[in-house]
Amino acid sequence: MILSALLTSVGINLGLCFLFFALYSILRNQPGNIPVYSPRLFSERKAQEEDEFNLERLLPSPGWLKRAWQPSEDELLSITGLDAVVFMRIFIFCVRVFAFACVVGIFVLLPVNFSGDQLTIDFSNLPNKTLESFSISNVNDGSNRLWIHFCAVYVFTVFVCCLLYYEYNYISLKRIDHFYSSKPRSDQFTILVSGIPASAGSSFSQAVDNFFTEYHPSTYLSHTVVRRTSKIQSLVNDAEKLYRTLGRLKSTNSRQRHKREGFFGLFGQKVDLVDHYERKLEDIEDNVRLEQLSLGGEEIPAAFVSFKSRFGAATALHIRQGINPTEWVTERAPEPKDIYWPFFSASFVKRWMFKIVVVVAYIAVTILFLIPVVVVQGLTHLEQLETWLPFLKGVLNLTFVSNLITGYLPSLILQLFLSIVPPIMILFSSMQGSISHSQIEKNACTMLLWFTVWNIFFANVLSGSALSMVNIFLEPKKIPGLLGEVVPAQASFFIAYVVTSGWTSTTSELLRLFPLLYSFVQRLFMGKDDDEDDFEIPSIPYHSEIPRILFFKLLGVTYFFLAPLILPFLLVYCCLGYIIYRNQFLNVYAPKFETGGKFWPIVHNSTIFSLVLMHVIAIGIFGLKKLPLASSLTIPLPILTLVFNAYCRKRFLPIFKAYPTECLIKKDRKDQDDPTMTEFLEKLATAYQDPAMKAARYSRNDDGRSSPLLQGVEV
Amino acid sequence: MILSALLTSVGINLGLCFLFFALYSILRNQPGNIPVYSPRLFSERKAQEEDEFNLERLLPSPGWLKRAWQPSEDELLSITGLDAVVFMRIFIFCVRVFAFACVVGIFVLLPVNFSGDQLTIDFSNLPNKTLESFSISNVNDGSNRLWIHFCAVYVFTVFVCCLLYYEYNYISLKRIDHFYSSKPRSDQFTILVSGIPASAGSSFSQAVDNFFTEYHPSTYLSHTVVRRTSKIQSLVNDAEKLYRTLGRLKSTNSRQRHKREGFFGLFGQKVDLVDHYERKLEDIEDNVRLEQLSLGGEEIPAAFVSFKSRFGAATALHIRQGINPTEWVTERAPEPKDIYWPFFSASFVKRWMFKIVVVVAYIAVTILFLIPVVVVQGLTHLEQLETWLPFLKGVLNLTFVSNLITGYLPSLILQLFLSIVPPIMILFSSMQGSISHSQIEKNACTMLLWFTVWNIFFANVLSGSALSMVNIFLEPKKIPGLLGEVVPAQASFFIAYVVTSGWTSTTSELLRLFPLLYSFVQRLFMGKDDDEDDFEIPSIPYHSEIPRILFFKLLGVTYFFLAPLILPFLLVYCCLGYIIYRNQFLNVYAPKFETGGKFWPIVHNSTIFSLVLMHVIAIGIFGLKKLPLASSLTIPLPILTLVFNAYCRKRFLPIFKAYPTECLIKKDRKDQDDPTMTEFLEKLATAYQDPAMKAARYSRNDDGRSSPLLQGVEV
Repeated sequence: MILSALLTSVGINLGLCFLFFALYSILRNQPGNIPVYSPRLFSERKAQEEDEFNLERLLPSPGWLKRAWQPSEDELLSITGLDAVVFMRIFIFCVRVFAFACVVGIFVLLPVNFSGDQLTIDFSNLPNKTLESFSISNVNDGSNRLWIHFCAVYVFTVFVCCLLYYEYNYISLKRIDHFYSSKPRSDQFTILVSGIPASAGSSFSQAVDNFFTEYHPSTYLSHTVVRRTSKIQSLVNDAEKLYRTLGRLKSTNSRQRHKREGFFGLFGQKVDLVDHYERKLEDIEDNVRLEQLSLGGEEIPAAFVSFKSRFGAATALHIRQGINPTEWVTERAPEPKDIYWPFFSASFVKRWMFKIVVVVAYIAVTILFLIPVVVVQGLTHLEQLETWLPFLKGVLNLTFVSNLITGYLPSLILQLFLSIVPPIMILFSSMQGSISHSQIEKNACTMLLWFTVWNIFFANVLSGSALSMVNIFLEPKKIPGLLGEVVPAQASFFIAYVVTSGWTSTTSELLRLFPLLYSFVQRLFMGKDDDEDDFEIPSIPYHSEIPRILFFKLLGVTYFFLAPLILPFLLVYCCLGYIIYRNQFLNVYAPKFETGGKFWPIVHNSTIFSLVLMHVIAIGIFGLKKLPLASSLTIPLPILTLVFNAYCRKRFLPIFKAYPTECLIKKDRKDQDDPTMTEFLEKLATAYQDPAMKAARYSRNDDGRSSPLLQGVEV
Repeated sequence: MILSALLTSVGINLGLCFLFFALYSILRNQPGNIPVYSPRLFSERKAQEEDEFNLERLLPSPGWLKRAWQPSEDELLSITGLDAVVFMRIFIFCVRVFAFACVVGIFVLLPVNFSGDQLTIDFSNLPNKTLESFSISNVNDGSNRLWIHFCAVYVFTVFVCCLLYYEYNYISLKRIDHFYSSKPRSDQFTILVSGIPASAGSSFSQAVDNFFTEYHPSTYLSHTVVRRTSKIQSLVNDAEKLYRTLGRLKSTNSRQRHKREGFFGLFGQKVDLVDHYERKLEDIEDNVRLEQLSLGGEEIPAAFVSFKSRFGAATALHIRQGINPTEWVTERAPEPKDIYWPFFSASFVKRWMFKIVVVVAYIAVTILFLIPVVVVQGLTHLEQLETWLPFLKGVLNLTFVSNLITGYLPSLILQLFLSIVPPIMILFSSMQGSISHSQIEKNACTMLLWFTVWNIFFANVLSGSALSMVNIFLEPKKIPGLLGEVVPAQASFFIAYVVTSGWTSTTSELLRLFPLLYSFVQRLFMGKDDDEDDFEIPSIPYHSEIPRILFFKLLGVTYFFLAPLILPFLLVYCCLGYIIYRNQFLNVYAPKFETGGKFWPIVHNSTIFSLVLMHVIAIGIFGLKKLPLASSLTIPLPILTLVFNAYCRKRFLPIFKAYPTECLIKKDRKDQDDPTMTEFLEKLATAYQDPAMKAARYSRNDDGRSSPLLQGVEV
């Protein structure tokens, strides 16, 4: 790709970004859009709806930027929870890394690269200059200037490791603080016990009660056996659907309320549809109540067991309970609202099979995804496209078209294909049998990260078929050399990718295009306040956002010394992301769950991987550039990095796995003086009831009100 | 190797075995040899020493065989502990596996192999027939008879897996039973805490006390801070040495007791040597006492912390204690007599460095060991030796010499070299920083096992330089084919190895040659009862015995379908081993520690490895034999075996890691009624004192007695 193609792409995307910014600052001022752009405020009814029209509303203003910038981290923590803070720390970390890399890369490495003459370039024509003249490929073979790159690699690694240590430490302290300052939460007092052994005379519920009264007499509080409630759940869903239809019918005029019964609605007597549906709703609700009273679904050998103290729960969690390790298996319980209930409907054998299916499916998707990647790769090499589709030759020879196709289109197509992957990963992750939404998102996050690294980085770089890629990894000796050869060549594609996928996607996140359209359509065709009752504040999809940022970090780290030109673009991306996501957290997203910063270890590990990948490429490229001494001297670097990682795993990772005795007992003691604790412990007994077992009553003859009333049924 | 060479080797070893058997049954009847052949009885003074001479004593008798056979497993358990029972179970397991393999191999596979005509053989001359005609190499390429081998592999794998499951289950139940029936042991109530954070004003002892009183108020009992006692230890050693010298001096006649002081003992006045040494001893003991009173050596940030109940100790062990995961690190405490004290003298940085040194040294030893292996390999290929050393041609052409060299010598030389490896492994393992003798032996056992598999199996089979071996493992695709090609060719060498190393070494274990010689020399030059006071019952070196048996199992499993001729030899070995080690456990060895069967997982894992190795070879050999369908159909087998192993890891391994709540609390409750528990808990406070801190008083002016008196000094 030549410089002008890159500039075309940058231009288009820069334009789009400014357009989005302007549109956002106008649209967010429209009162009708408050549910789209400030759902948090909307749900709290804080936003004053001033319907009077004034001209100011139609002018773009940067005021929201200031408002997004202002809150301190502690304020953000209290508003959005620790996970959001950790998410923002990723941007802060990246900004720091890329700022340092930019200084070294642009002021030291870039001049060195540019002054080389390994690649023969026509100096008179700068716009047509290929971007490769800014990369390490342009440095002469065997030149001593490569030692500058060598030093840069060492200095950069040390800098990143120090920063990693600092951040890990910072976030683990935040996690502990957050635990100390948190209100009593049901998941801190509860564990999930599975593999309850079946005994002849007694139910699972009795077995759990006997076991924990016997072995944890002083701390055991209560338990809730999990039931297979898919049948009730579907009945409840039916009831809910009917209730909605009823609501809509009532709000429309009475003409549509009557319908002829009988053949195609043409014959038979007229009936009141509302009456008809209400009778049906009552029927279903009777069924639900019957099912619930007959003790709901079949008991499955798993139960949520609650304890009187956090330390009591930890004791039962960490020490194996039964003699047979496959019985009385304990697991941390998630928050009640975080539980993924469908998980419990599947039997254990089913889940075991699903796990294997998921692995196979994950591999299949990863391999099939190579097809669009290869097509995209074809676009960047325009000559290849011309040979494939000769009739396009005329069009392709236009400079703008050619620039558009090589510079903008490939990453756009890749972007579109990539957008369908996160839902697939969530599906895979939930099939794997996680018991909570947070765990599902965490697993999906890891899966998507490796998917991205493999399919975007390696597939683009190696640009071969899947088979040849696998073959390479069977010959470990050749990897550094090969990577050193092919990675620098793809620098220009990745710069374009950063601009398209990074800049524009992040800015479009601000605009929330789909919710905006949805809300617009809804307002156009339905009543405005129709959905206020079941209005739900959206939550940020960590599983798709985190891998994207981490992938850009990987690009920045690996290309730092190969093609420093990518770094300013990445720095801009991180700054954009920082301010935009801050705004979104403050206005749009509400946390669906609270993991207490458990996403950070993924960030740490991926950074270590990026560093080691950079080292491997450095070993390869110094070898190719005929500086074998530098190549050998780089070998200790990945080893030292991995030793550093081993230390960090020992020093910080346990903090993210479980809270220590010290914290648990301190917190328990503090709670002893709290008068609300008795009330909390009473509530704990019913906190882990399946939502399907709590009767949702919609029918009007219940208590006059026609709104859903959640009412727990004691089991 | 031809059949006659094998027969020579078998003949020699069979002769040696019978000789050893006869010698043993005579020697053990000599009263003077009781400390050598029945040290257990000797120490219990049960053996009546009948000094009168009768002829029966000089005749070999098989009576001891019957006595070794008789005791039931429960009796063995009560006499020798669970570890010895587990050790004997290895033999039982092997006998079962090889008995089944023998039936299938000899009656089904051997005739099939022999009836093939892939190898052109001169049928008229059976003694010169190469052993390969009994192996799978002789089956015709592409022959459908190979499906018999294919079925045998499947059936054998299923059989071994069932047996593995049964044994794992059996031993884990034994382990739980053993725990229930055990007396209270200090290690059940104690944990080792390291990484105690240093605080300004207080000592480590105070810090431990404060921490555990704060967080485990109801269960914390006492603690003992570990000290760096290498200085005191050396003083105590000096005192001990002096005491021995004194004892010897006193027992000899008074002429030698006087020595001239001064130049070369020629001038100066005569002094009483006994007086002189006694004064010196007193001096040293004063020093020891002084050191002990000044609170001994420097405190190190580690302590043994004891609890009032087993469950209390488990709670502190399994839940992380401090916020910083590198502080308050908890670890299971070994039994007091099992502690490896020198470990505590090294600082943590030193130990970290030692670990790296050990890894490097282990690799170096493993590679250097290839030299003798290659030499040994040269001997089996006689032609090669002739080209190396042409002047030996005349001698080598003699049939007997050639048979001796190819059949007997190689495995003998290998055996000699191998005998120096276990002490090296123990050294490595103790340098790695294990805190107990049992852990050191367990680590050494694993290290030695892989050393043996690599150096005896792979080095012999691949018979190349270390570099070419490493290269092979970098190309995983080629491994099955290569193994399929080279493994069957080495069958004859391994048969000879089984006969030499298995039969003769095991029988010589019975004879206890070195202790016999030592005892003989001692009786000849010194008084007979001299060493009664510090007589120590030997303990079995698990780290060298277990890997040997496991290696034979690996040979049996891998060669089962390749060269079934090896199986009868292995079966004989296992039967020999079973009866001989039973005899040794009953008469010779006393347990030095009790791990509760923790060696079994090593046995299980090595068996799974053997099975998978066999499958890989099968995949390779079916491919080479032009039966690609069988080759592909074998691929699921290793996968299923690994799935089976994954299940076993989940089902049984946790039982060998820690005892569950159920057991701990049941056992604790049983103890509540035991009146001796208060006494036991009192003793617990001082149980973990460094032996160097317990003053050993030897000097006579202490209490008149001149025997060592162990007397604890309260710290």
